[in-house]
Amino acid sequence: MKQQALVAILVGSDSDLPTLAGAASVLEDFGIPYFITVASAHRSPERTVKIVSTFHKDGGKIIIAAAGLAAHLAGVVAAHFPLPVIGLPLKGGALNGIDSLYATVQMPPGIPVATVGIDNSQNAGLLATQILATSDKKLEKKFMTYKENLAKKVEEKAKTLTDKGLSRYIDERLKNS
Amino acid sequence: MKQQALVAILVGSDSDLPTLAGAASVLEDFGIPYFITVASAHRSPERTVKIVSTFHKDGGKIIIAAAGLAAHLAGVVAAHFPLPVIGLPLKGGALNGIDSLYATVQMPPGIPVATVGIDNSQNAGLLATQILATSDKKLEKKFMTYKENLAKKVEEKAKTLTDKGLSRYIDERLKNS
Amino acid sequence: MKQQALVAILVGSDSDLPTLAGAASVLEDFGIPYFITVASAHRSPERTVKIVSTFHKDGGKIIIAAAGLAAHLAGVVAAHFPLPVIGLPLKGGALNGIDSLYATVQMPPGIPVATVGIDNSQNAGLLATQILATSDKKLEKKFMTYKENLAKKVEEKAKTLTDKGLSRYIDERLKNS
Amino acid sequence: MKQQALVAILVGSDSDLPTLAGAASVLEDFGIPYFITVASAHRSPERTVKIVSTFHKDGGKIIIAAAGLAAHLAGVVAAHFPLPVIGLPLKGGALNGIDSLYATVQMPPGIPVATVGIDNSQNAGLLATQILATSDKKLEKKFMTYKENLAKKVEEKAKTLTDKGLSRYIDERLKNS
Amino acid sequence: MKQQALVAILVGSDSDLPTLAGAASVLEDFGIPYFITVASAHRSPERTVKIVSTFHKDGGKIIIAAAGLAAHLAGVVAAHFPLPVIGLPLKGGALNGIDSLYATVQMPPGIPVATVGIDNSQNAGLLATQILATSDKKLEKKFMTYKENLAKKVEEKAKTLTDKGLSRYIDERLKNS
Amino acid sequence: MKQQALVAILVGSDSDLPTLAGAASVLEDFGIPYFITVASAHRSPERTVKIVSTFHKDGGKIIIAAAGLAAHLAGVVAAHFPLPVIGLPLKGGALNGIDSLYATVQMPPGIPVATVGIDNSQNAGLLATQILATSDKKLEKKFMTYKENLAKKVEEKAKTLTDKGLSRYIDERLKNS
Amino acid sequence: MKQQALVAILVGSDSDLPTLAGAASVLEDFGIPYFITVASAHRSPERTVKIVSTFHKDGGKIIIAAAGLAAHLAGVVAAHFPLPVIGLPLKGGALNGIDSLYATVQMPPGIPVATVGIDNSQNAGLLATQILATSDKKLEKKFMTYKENLAKKVEEKAKTLTDKGLSRYIDERLKNS
Amino acid sequence: MKQQALVAILVGSDSDLPTLAGAASVLEDFGIPYFITVASAHRSPERTVKIVSTFHKDGGKIIIAAAGLAAHLAGVVAAHFPLPVIGLPLKGGALNGIDSLYATVQMPPGIPVATVGIDNSQNAGLLATQILATSDKKLEKKFMTYKENLAKKVEEKAKTLTDKGLSRYIDERLKNS
Repeated sequence: MKQQALVAILVGSDSDLPTLAGAASVLEDFGIPYFITVASAHRSPERTVKIVSTFHKDGGKIIIAAAGLAAHLAGVVAAHFPLPVIGLPLKGGALNGIDSLYATVQMPPGIPVATVGIDNSQNAGLLATQILATSDKKLEKKFMTYKENLAKKVEEKAKTLTDKGLSRYIDERLKNS
Repeated sequence: MKQQALVAILVGSDSDLPTLAGAASVLEDFGIPYFITVASAHRSPERTVKIVSTFHKDGGKIIIAAAGLAAHLAGVVAAHFPLPVIGLPLKGGALNGIDSLYATVQMPPGIPVATVGIDNSQNAGLLATQILATSDKKLEKKFMTYKENLAKKVEEKAKTLTDKGLSRYIDERLKNS
Repeated sequence: MKQQALVAILVGSDSDLPTLAGAASVLEDFGIPYFITVASAHRSPERTVKIVSTFHKDGGKIIIAAAGLAAHLAGVVAAHFPLPVIGLPLKGGALNGIDSLYATVQMPPGIPVATVGIDNSQNAGLLATQILATSDKKLEKKFMTYKENLAKKVEEKAKTLTDKGLSRYIDERLKNS
Repeated sequence: MKQQALVAILVGSDSDLPTLAGAASVLEDFGIPYFITVASAHRSPERTVKIVSTFHKDGGKIIIAAAGLAAHLAGVVAAHFPLPVIGLPLKGGALNGIDSLYATVQMPPGIPVATVGIDNSQNAGLLATQILATSDKKLEKKFMTYKENLAKKVEEKAKTLTDKGLSRYIDERLKNS
Repeated sequence: MKQQALVAILVGSDSDLPTLAGAASVLEDFGIPYFITVASAHRSPERTVKIVSTFHKDGGKIIIAAAGLAAHLAGVVAAHFPLPVIGLPLKGGALNGIDSLYATVQMPPGIPVATVGIDNSQNAGLLATQILATSDKKLEKKFMTYKENLAKKVEEKAKTLTDKGLSRYIDERLKNS
Repeated sequence: MKQQALVAILVGSDSDLPTLAGAASVLEDFGIPYFITVASAHRSPERTVKIVSTFHKDGGKIIIAAAGLAAHLAGVVAAHFPLPVIGLPLKGGALNGIDSLYATVQMPPGIPVATVGIDNSQNAGLLATQILATSDKKLEKKFMTYKENLAKKVEEKAKTLTDKGLSRYIDERLKNS
Repeated sequence: MKQQALVAILVGSDSDLPTLAGAASVLEDFGIPYFITVASAHRSPERTVKIVSTFHKDGGKIIIAAAGLAAHLAGVVAAHFPLPVIGLPLKGGALNGIDSLYATVQMPPGIPVATVGIDNSQNAGLLATQILATSDKKLEKKFMTYKENLAKKVEEKAKTLTDKGLSRYIDERLKNS
Repeated sequence: MKQQALVAILVGSDSDLPTLAGAASVLEDFGIPYFITVASAHRSPERTVKIVSTFHKDGGKIIIAAAGLAAHLAGVVAAHFPLPVIGLPLKGGALNGIDSLYATVQMPPGIPVATVGIDNSQNAGLLATQILATSDKKLEKKFMTYKENLAKKVEEKAKTLTDKGLSRYIDERLKNS
């Protein structure tokens, strides 16, 4: 990626990379330069801080931080980054992501983390897009088109459902999944 | 407020306005034009949609939506606003805000809400500030100064604690609270 | 379906249609005209509102709204519909439906949603039937017969269990499942 | 009350009567004949069953059943009543009403309970009103006026907030509460 | 079973019978006469009450009531039975048995249910045994022998573990499971 | 108390004694000989084991074990006592008794604890009474009278409510509380 | 404190110092040199890291880290300290400490935090003592004496309870609290 | 193992031994003498107490106690052992380890258990290592090297990710898992 990244995706463990593909693909679809790397708040704290401050100096705007369990990554990143940090709590472990949700969203006053739903990688990418769209009219337009498409897809599905009837719709859907 | 508001604060019920004062005062401290109004997703849905679309047409950039219980306000706003929506789950009710947290953060793929901690009004204001700072170097500087002051205050308290010792510190703190 | 529908089933995502089959089949068994469509509170809010108000003008009486995660659909529908809205929280996602249960049942004072159990589609259909039965003696009779049959089925199973004994009953049950 | 009651409010313990006042006053406002009594699923099961069947024979249409803790009242009533049962989970006890919510809403397939939010007595009354309104155009009109008033009140509060500003609004609100 | 049953096992749904086998086999091992039947608090309430009162008149001593979801069976049985009712919450459904646990154990003052762990059918049988052992010295002895055997089995496993070492023990255990 | 105690009430901390008064007064009302003492599973384990085995040798029949937080007392007692152990989870601490409920009821297979509701001391006493009533016809009669009185009290309250009307009933109740 | 501290107590916010007094007083009672300071993982991350590494270089052995909400302090400290970190989750906030408990205990593999109960400051101090006692026979003796005293206090209370009887004990206890 | 064990691993049930392998292998990697055995708090309480006191007399320093459900093992061990007890809550059962987490960590004041995350066996082993490292400089060095390796592994994975790109990395990772 030659262009300076505007968004950095940090993930606590490489085993979570498949989940992160959703955020990456949204950023690609919207043409937003980004990079993704593995960075642990606990196992490699110095490196994490260094990535954050380099990214900031280079003009990076938003960090998406994804972690499971006692998910400290977003908070640690937020402690060192003055611009928006998007926290993506991951589901792994016995508590199904309630632990990572609480550890991400319940930040103390002074250091916010913009938290999205558990494992909702796509929404992390979309939120980053919306943030950049606050100062980029073209991106805002693109996002509005994206939302119109969401509405259209619902309408198309509704039409197909009416045409085929419930049982046939379910049958064909199950076949394709 | 003569200047065009960049941030709108919507709150589901006027009984929650005292909690919202924290967000409002952050925006004032950072000199960010905003307005605040009562807007219910359930009791006045049309008006809420109208406020959102007018705000968008007038150049508004971010909406903070605060609600308790089955907190739908942020989601409903996000359905009609293409730029960032910050969800502030409120504590009222028997479930102490777990209901509003889940109802705010667990948005379906496609429509993110940037959620902050339960009742953490100050962080909603700070996150709005950080989002605007992605395209406003002055604001970013201000925010960095704000963070340095947070660090300084911790240091001062630590110094006072060392000077006075634990028991005297606690005694004097309790007197002042 | 030529007859004017008395019940509308709205579902947030077509992936949840298989779960909704339970409600639909109850309505068919009781001969209650209904229609089912996909309608998202977040992705196609205007269309959802339009479906609701058209349904109301045409004489529709009850809406069953089914959604998962931060399930706002029932609440959004209730904001625009003056007659009963039955909320059906769905199980999908990391929190197993606790999020959708809270987001459906914990409505603010003024806008109730009649909530049934998580994924309990059949009960949504039965509740709609009971509501219509408040002004339809024939339907009430039918429902009472339905309940008597429930009781009979329990009795038959109990008899079979006594006749066969526990181990044989379990063995044969497992074979058939 | 001379008119035959259409709604019966049953409450598990007389200590919960103050909470039930909300439902009762809604029914009075809408001119719906009702009665309220104490009826325990566990301490006086026969009497509860008798009240339910008498109410049904006399033409009663809806039962609101309110209970706390392991709240079985609504389920027991639903087992004996073929028309809608509205379950109102109450907050009392160490678990703050999560126990009564689960015990009320998670009914097995076949016997639905229309559950409203914890301690949300007003919504129980409003849901009963909406159910009766499915066959009573006048009542439906009244309910629509009620909803318009909800919207107007929000608008008025919003206007007052704009006129007075946030701090004065909060100050005056706190004085009155 | 010719002998008068001292213990009755009631289960809300025949699909839960495999779980109940654990309780039944404990009672058989201890030579305690019992019967098991399907009895629903909601679908066949009259029959359930009749079973309970007949069992009581015939000299029955303990009822084990097992149910899932909003598990009212144990409470309903306890309302009609003056002797000990053992509640066995079952795991089925989205909430994994937290709903049935709360609905079983959180009984109001006056009507206790002796609750055992979720799906812990064996402990329901053992508790019934212990209750009967309060007035049956032979049974108490048998139970003490049972407990000694539990301790011995632990010791044997510990010995095998020491002899084989951890890895071999795990390997062989995995093969057998 | 000269008579040999049939029930022992053990409580983990003397600060919980006021809650235990409910159980004690039930046993007194039913004329059941009992004793109550402070016995900690963690702070005085040997003494606890000794109390349990002495009580058993002396002919004691039931132990009520009450504790808060990680409530191990009932489990530890059950490990050393072959007859019924009633676990009473207490509410103290940040988790409001969910911790003590889980730590009491979720016993491993082999060692049951008969658990009653959080802080429901009265039900612990009543369950002990029911257990003793399995072999004591007089006590069973007494318990049946007790239950009839519960039903009568409900009836009386219902009558008073009908006579006075809701508002007056609430007013007078509030005055007396 | 002239002696080199063996234990450092770090607390995220000075408002939590009163809770920390319990840990401090245990260390004083056991004569263990310690210091206490305010150090935030989020507001002053560099200072926190510096305190940790200085403490380590100076020969410090154990860090107690106490924080509420999304409690990252213990994890951040553990990332920089090779010796035991004791995490003390604090209760403040809407979730009553469940958030801080999960955020403290659910650390990823590789970086443990030795977690004690919510707000259980005394146990944090005792655990530090036990850790130091693994290489300090005198301290171990002291700790054993401390435990014997716990047992004695239970015995004394039990004796007083037997002497005075339940009601008098409760009355006098309530007077003194 | 000829050397006197410094760490004892006790596990409530042999079915949990595979989970415990993580702790055992850490201790082996660090060259710490240990033994592992099955010891139940409930099924073989005397044996458990005996193991603990023998281990203490022989110079043992740390006990790791692992159990599921109402996990009393760590607490029972802590009641009899004056040196650090590490509690490892296990995941088995309907509540996914929330029960064992609460039953392990929420110990009463006076008897701490150093709790690690649910099923996080590796961290139990590492915490034991860190505790021994407080008085063993060589072990501390080893642990620091271990941590450096954790950081290096993160760096290597990050490098590979950058070299291969996200999709190829995911593909190859999935193949190997």
